[in-house]
Amino acid sequence: MKDRNIILKILFGLFLIVLIVVIVRVFLLSPESTAKHTAIPDTEYDPAVWGKQYPLEYKSYLKNRETSPSPTGFGGSVNYQKSTKEPEIQMNFKGTAFSKDFSEDRGHPYSVEDLKASKRVTPATSGSCMTCKTANLRDIYKDMGWNYAKTPLADLLSRVTHPIVCANCHDPKNMNLRVINPAFIEAMTKRGVDVAKASREDMRSYVCGQCHAEYYFEPESKRVVFPWNKGLKPQEIYAYYKEIPSGFDADWQHPDSGAKMLKAQHPDYELFSNGVHGKSGVSCADCHMPYMREGGRKYSSHWVTSPMKHVQASCRTCHTQDEKWLLDRLKTTQDHVFQLQRTAGRAIAKAHEILGKVSTNARADKTELDKARELLRNAQWYWDFVSAENSMGFHNPDQTLNTLGQSIDLAHQAAATANRAAGTHY
Amino acid sequence: MKDRNIILKILFGLFLIVLIVVIVRVFLLSPESTAKHTAIPDTEYDPAVWGKQYPLEYKSYLKNRETSPSPTGFGGSVNYQKSTKEPEIQMNFKGTAFSKDFSEDRGHPYSVEDLKASKRVTPATSGSCMTCKTANLRDIYKDMGWNYAKTPLADLLSRVTHPIVCANCHDPKNMNLRVINPAFIEAMTKRGVDVAKASREDMRSYVCGQCHAEYYFEPESKRVVFPWNKGLKPQEIYAYYKEIPSGFDADWQHPDSGAKMLKAQHPDYELFSNGVHGKSGVSCADCHMPYMREGGRKYSSHWVTSPMKHVQASCRTCHTQDEKWLLDRLKTTQDHVFQLQRTAGRAIAKAHEILGKVSTNARADKTELDKARELLRNAQWYWDFVSAENSMGFHNPDQTLNTLGQSIDLAHQAAATANRAAGTHY
Repeated sequence: MKDRNIILKILFGLFLIVLIVVIVRVFLLSPESTAKHTAIPDTEYDPAVWGKQYPLEYKSYLKNRETSPSPTGFGGSVNYQKSTKEPEIQMNFKGTAFSKDFSEDRGHPYSVEDLKASKRVTPATSGSCMTCKTANLRDIYKDMGWNYAKTPLADLLSRVTHPIVCANCHDPKNMNLRVINPAFIEAMTKRGVDVAKASREDMRSYVCGQCHAEYYFEPESKRVVFPWNKGLKPQEIYAYYKEIPSGFDADWQHPDSGAKMLKAQHPDYELFSNGVHGKSGVSCADCHMPYMREGGRKYSSHWVTSPMKHVQASCRTCHTQDEKWLLDRLKTTQDHVFQLQRTAGRAIAKAHEILGKVSTNARADKTELDKARELLRNAQWYWDFVSAENSMGFHNPDQTLNTLGQSIDLAHQAAATANRAAGTHY
Repeated sequence: MKDRNIILKILFGLFLIVLIVVIVRVFLLSPESTAKHTAIPDTEYDPAVWGKQYPLEYKSYLKNRETSPSPTGFGGSVNYQKSTKEPEIQMNFKGTAFSKDFSEDRGHPYSVEDLKASKRVTPATSGSCMTCKTANLRDIYKDMGWNYAKTPLADLLSRVTHPIVCANCHDPKNMNLRVINPAFIEAMTKRGVDVAKASREDMRSYVCGQCHAEYYFEPESKRVVFPWNKGLKPQEIYAYYKEIPSGFDADWQHPDSGAKMLKAQHPDYELFSNGVHGKSGVSCADCHMPYMREGGRKYSSHWVTSPMKHVQASCRTCHTQDEKWLLDRLKTTQDHVFQLQRTAGRAIAKAHEILGKVSTNARADKTELDKARELLRNAQWYWDFVSAENSMGFHNPDQTLNTLGQSIDLAHQAAATANRAAGTHY
């Protein structure tokens, strides 16, 4: 009898423990992962509505409204004119709106607000500019197909009710990751990748890569195209731009040098893909949206920001060195990149100036001068590929520094060629 | 009784196991680590004698006699003239023996043989050139102090009986690591490091760093000096050379450009120290002399070669990626470095040519021409710092690529300044 009593007591104790665990998990700690969710409508773009069911993710998404510098002094989400730190930007983008307004972007919640406020936006701005700024793209593209791209942006703005929100990356039915930018899906198809069948790990980079990438607007149609047919390296994209069939040959012509220029657009995904993290199978989200814990619950941070702001969660999952050590290494790399970025940028600005002077010389050898312009176009493409990217080289240090080294060489070659063309020595 | 019998049987079984382990370890597997060693005399430099007591280390040391390329195509121990791959070397070292003979070094056992065969050695060559080539340095320095450095090399060669051998890095009494190069000991003392008290882990880099480092010969005394007072970075060493008290200001004057040049000497230790491996506490030996196993015995490989020849033992102790992946990453970095190294080297060769032409112009502005020469000296220092180093950038990729980027910029600035000085446009 005594033995039986003990066994019964033990069984009752175990039952109580299980009961408590179930109550805590189901009703208190983990509403998202175990509780039944109410269906979120397919066209619900308000993150506050999604946030009712995913409070921790939403709370971290709201942190994207904070603006703060990054610990190494590069990047961050504070809105400032980049030309205050790098005055050469004014010369290098002369003749384009980037010389008037080239500011650091703030976070995703500001995408529409900042688009409307940008001095680069004019009545002539096409709808294509909206592609990466809003979840409403889904419905607009569904209704109009690529026709939205050539529709004036101003005519579409009434349909743009939300910035970059949950729906840009998640299917509300099941929270599966998805991409909504048709340009990315098309570019990946050309590369032999069916995004609809991608693994979750790949999707954790694709959702970011759908917008953090280089693109151009096809003339006439204004369709957004990712120039990836030959590969993702700056020289491969440059080669693509040399021979695209659509007739696109420049974003603008520089008023001083007369060179036909390309504007690079934040090729974060391209640089990351060939870097050590990308090649190691680390996804964008692994570092930028690390797993966090609150109240015993694990969730992905939706504060999409510099990993340097949470080194413990982002880096120390794999790297055993302490936080200060990791930040020091990062800063060393970024300092090396920034130094060459400025050297390249200044050599390019100087070359624009020299070509400008030579261009006014009627006796200058026109063929040589055109060679100089081609060298300068290439130099600036390499510089801008790095300068427009958001990691100050960290996504791929050795490719970035190699690209800047080539840029410096080409910029000086452009200047020397121009001087030879006119027998000058500026 | 029965219980007692069982206990006795178990004890006897355990005794047998212990006996077998002891027999195997002491008599069969591990003569070096457990058998009593006969004392090796203090001045015994023949590695074959040491090898009788350390057969596995000796066997691996003998592999240094093999010459083989490295898997990525850079480095390796095959003796060839570097100018066959990089013809710009001929121009950049014009006026110095390096334009006649700048070949890849073979392994440690060949150090004396290759020194004697070098076309850079003449009757005027000083004894200082012997510093890093032989274990006999110990006795020569003990007898003569730094006087050996200004004694003609030819007068010392009869005392040089062995190349770089066990005694360069080990004390035969107890096999402790030691350094024998007085220049390294002095340089470290100036940096506040007492090498005699260094930890074993530090010594695993110091034994290599005592020779794989930048140095110069003090004028008059011909003493070997490591230019480390301001730090180990190329710009810090360049700054040191600008203001050293001994009056040393150049290794030679370039006959075409007239620039006073510095020759960099394999700054492997300097680049490694500031790189990610050095900063992580990884020693030279961890990668270049990894632990190996043979017949159940663990030993340090004394085949001092490219870690790429044994990625499993060298890299995979820390890095979990497979061998092909690791070699691919390495090759990507080295390709990026080699491309910029050649770009810099060619820009420098061109600048020597242009300065040479401008120098013959009597009306050229002398002050500007001197500025051009200073820019060129600096450009070549940066290029040579990388080019003379033995890892094709791997010891410190981002610093290396940054250095090359600066070199490219300075070389072009030198050419442009020279052209301006004479109103020419070469």
